[in-house]
Amino acid sequence: MVSLKEISALIDQGIANLPIPAKPEGLYGPIRYTMESGGKRLRPTLLLTCAAACGGDIKKSLPQALGLEMFHNFTLLHDDVMDNAEVRRGRPTVHRRWNRNTAILSGDAMLTLASQLMGDCDKAILPEVMSIFNKTALEVYEGQQLDMDYESRLDVTIPEYIDMIRLKTSVLLACACRMGVLTAGGSEKLMDDLYEYGESLGIAFQLQDDYLDTFGDPLVFGKETGGDILNEKKTWLWISACNEDESGVMQEAIAGKYNEDDKVKNVREVYRRLELDKRIVDLIGVYSNMALDALSRTGLGHEEKEILTGLTRSLATRVN
Amino acid sequence: MVSLKEISALIDQGIANLPIPAKPEGLYGPIRYTMESGGKRLRPTLLLTCAAACGGDIKKSLPQALGLEMFHNFTLLHDDVMDNAEVRRGRPTVHRRWNRNTAILSGDAMLTLASQLMGDCDKAILPEVMSIFNKTALEVYEGQQLDMDYESRLDVTIPEYIDMIRLKTSVLLACACRMGVLTAGGSEKLMDDLYEYGESLGIAFQLQDDYLDTFGDPLVFGKETGGDILNEKKTWLWISACNEDESGVMQEAIAGKYNEDDKVKNVREVYRRLELDKRIVDLIGVYSNMALDALSRTGLGHEEKEILTGLTRSLATRVN
Repeated sequence: MVSLKEISALIDQGIANLPIPAKPEGLYGPIRYTMESGGKRLRPTLLLTCAAACGGDIKKSLPQALGLEMFHNFTLLHDDVMDNAEVRRGRPTVHRRWNRNTAILSGDAMLTLASQLMGDCDKAILPEVMSIFNKTALEVYEGQQLDMDYESRLDVTIPEYIDMIRLKTSVLLACACRMGVLTAGGSEKLMDDLYEYGESLGIAFQLQDDYLDTFGDPLVFGKETGGDILNEKKTWLWISACNEDESGVMQEAIAGKYNEDDKVKNVREVYRRLELDKRIVDLIGVYSNMALDALSRTGLGHEEKEILTGLTRSLATRVN
Repeated sequence: MVSLKEISALIDQGIANLPIPAKPEGLYGPIRYTMESGGKRLRPTLLLTCAAACGGDIKKSLPQALGLEMFHNFTLLHDDVMDNAEVRRGRPTVHRRWNRNTAILSGDAMLTLASQLMGDCDKAILPEVMSIFNKTALEVYEGQQLDMDYESRLDVTIPEYIDMIRLKTSVLLACACRMGVLTAGGSEKLMDDLYEYGESLGIAFQLQDDYLDTFGDPLVFGKETGGDILNEKKTWLWISACNEDESGVMQEAIAGKYNEDDKVKNVREVYRRLELDKRIVDLIGVYSNMALDALSRTGLGHEEKEILTGLTRSLATRVN
C-alpha cells in the first residue's frame, strides 16, 4: 500500500506536467496560475487512495485524478467570478489578476481540459468514466444553482440545505472515490460503498467549510471570513440561528439594519450564544462517523482503510 | 439521399426532445430558452448532411449533431456575457433576461450536456468522437482569446485575422463534417476532405458574418449592427481600411475622436469608399469556391454533393 506522502508527490508531479499549451497565454496562463496555486488536492487524493485500496499501479488512475482536480478548480474559478471574490488560496482571484472575461473563458477551457483528462483511460471503461463524470458535473451545477436560489429565500430548511451541499460538494468527492475504484478495476460493491463514504465525508467537509468561513482565521483559511454571513448564505449555522434566535438580531440582519462589519460581528455573536459553533462541530462528527461506517462496510483490509480513516479524521479537524 | 428539409425536421424534433431536466429551473430554464430560440442550425445540418452522404440511417448521428449545436449555443451564451450583448436572435440575451451569474452557470451546464450528447455513440468510436470534440472546443476558445487579444492590438495582419477566424468559427464547422462521416462509418479520406470543406466554408461564413455586422439589416440580422466597429474588432474590413485609408478617419476613430453613432457611420463610409463592401463579397466567393473544390475531391456522387453545394451557395448569399 502506498503512503499518503507518495500519493501527494504523484499528484504534485502530475500537476506540474499537465499538458497545458503555452499559447495563447491569455487563455492558458490563468489555468496554470490556478492549477499551481496549491489547495488541499482532496479530490485527486481520494481518487488515488481508493485506487490504491484496490491494489495495482495507481499511476494508471492519475489522469482521472488530475481531471477531477481540474474540474474542481474550474468550478472555483467561475464561482469566484459569480461571487466577485477577491482572494483565493491567499492570492488574487483570476478575474482580479486578469479580468472577468479571461476568467470566464479560461474556466471554459478548464472544463474541456478536465474532460480530456477524464477520457485518458482504457477504452473498455471510457463510457462509464465519461458518464459518471458528466452526471456528477451536472449535479455540482445544480447544487450551485440551489445555493444561489437559497440566497433570496427565507424559508430554506435544514434538509434542503443538506441536499444542496450534497450536490454542490459531496457528489464530487463521492465521484472521486467511485472513479478511483473504477479505474483500478475494483468491484461494483466497492464503488458503491466508497461512493457512500465520499458522500458523507463531503457533507462533513462542507459543514467544516461553513464553520471556517465564519470562525476560521483568515490568514490560515486563505480568504476573508464572514462572506457567508454577508451574502446571507443559508448555511446550517444561519438556518439554525434563524430558527432559534429570540434576540431579534437575525431579523435585523435580514432587514439590512447593520453595516457590513456589524452584520458579521452580530450574527457571529448569535451563533456563539446559541452554541452553534460547538453544535456544528458535533454534526461534523456525526457525518464523519457515517463516512467511517461506510468504510467499515467495504471489507477492505486494515492497511487499505487506514489512509482513508486518517484522511477523514484530519478533514474533520482541519483549519483551512 | 434525404433532403435538407428532412434533415431540418429531424434536428427540430431532436432539439424539442432534448433530455434537459426540469429542475432547478434557474439552471435549466435558460438552456431551454437558448436552444429553442432558433438560429440556422448550421452545425447539426452539416453533420447530418455529411452523415447522409455516407449512406445509412442518419438518426444514429443525431446525438452528435445536437451535441455540437449545444456546444455552439454555449459559446454564444458566454460570448454574450463577455461582450455584454443585449440581443441574440431577436430576443434578450440570457444575462439580460435573467442575470450574469445565471448565464455563466447555465453555459457551464450546456458544455457538460454537449459532452454527454457527444458521448452517446457506438463504444468503438467513442474515443475518437471525444478526442475530436475536445480538441475542437479548445481551438474555439483559442480563437475567442485571440479575438479578444486583437481588440487591443493595432498591428493585426490579415493572415493573423484569417487564422483567428479559422479557430473561432471554421474548426467547429469542419468538426461537424468530420463527425458526420465518423458517426456514419465513412472513410478517413472522406473525413479529411470534408474537414477541409468545412474549414473553407467556415472562413467564408465568418467573413459573411463580419459583412452583415457592418452592412446587414438589424431587423433581418437579429441583432444590432456596427458592434464590430464600436469594439474595434480587427476584422478583414477594419484591417484593410487601416492599411488603405488616407483620409485620417480610421486614425481618428482609433483615437476616440467620435461618439458611438459617428464612429460607426464614418468607418462604414470609409469601408464603402474603399469598396471593401464589394471586395469582401469577392473574398467570400474565393473561400466558397475553395470549399466547393474540397467537395469535388471527395469523389461523392452528384446527389450527395448537391445538398452541400446548395448549402455553400446559400450561406455565401445569406442576409442573416
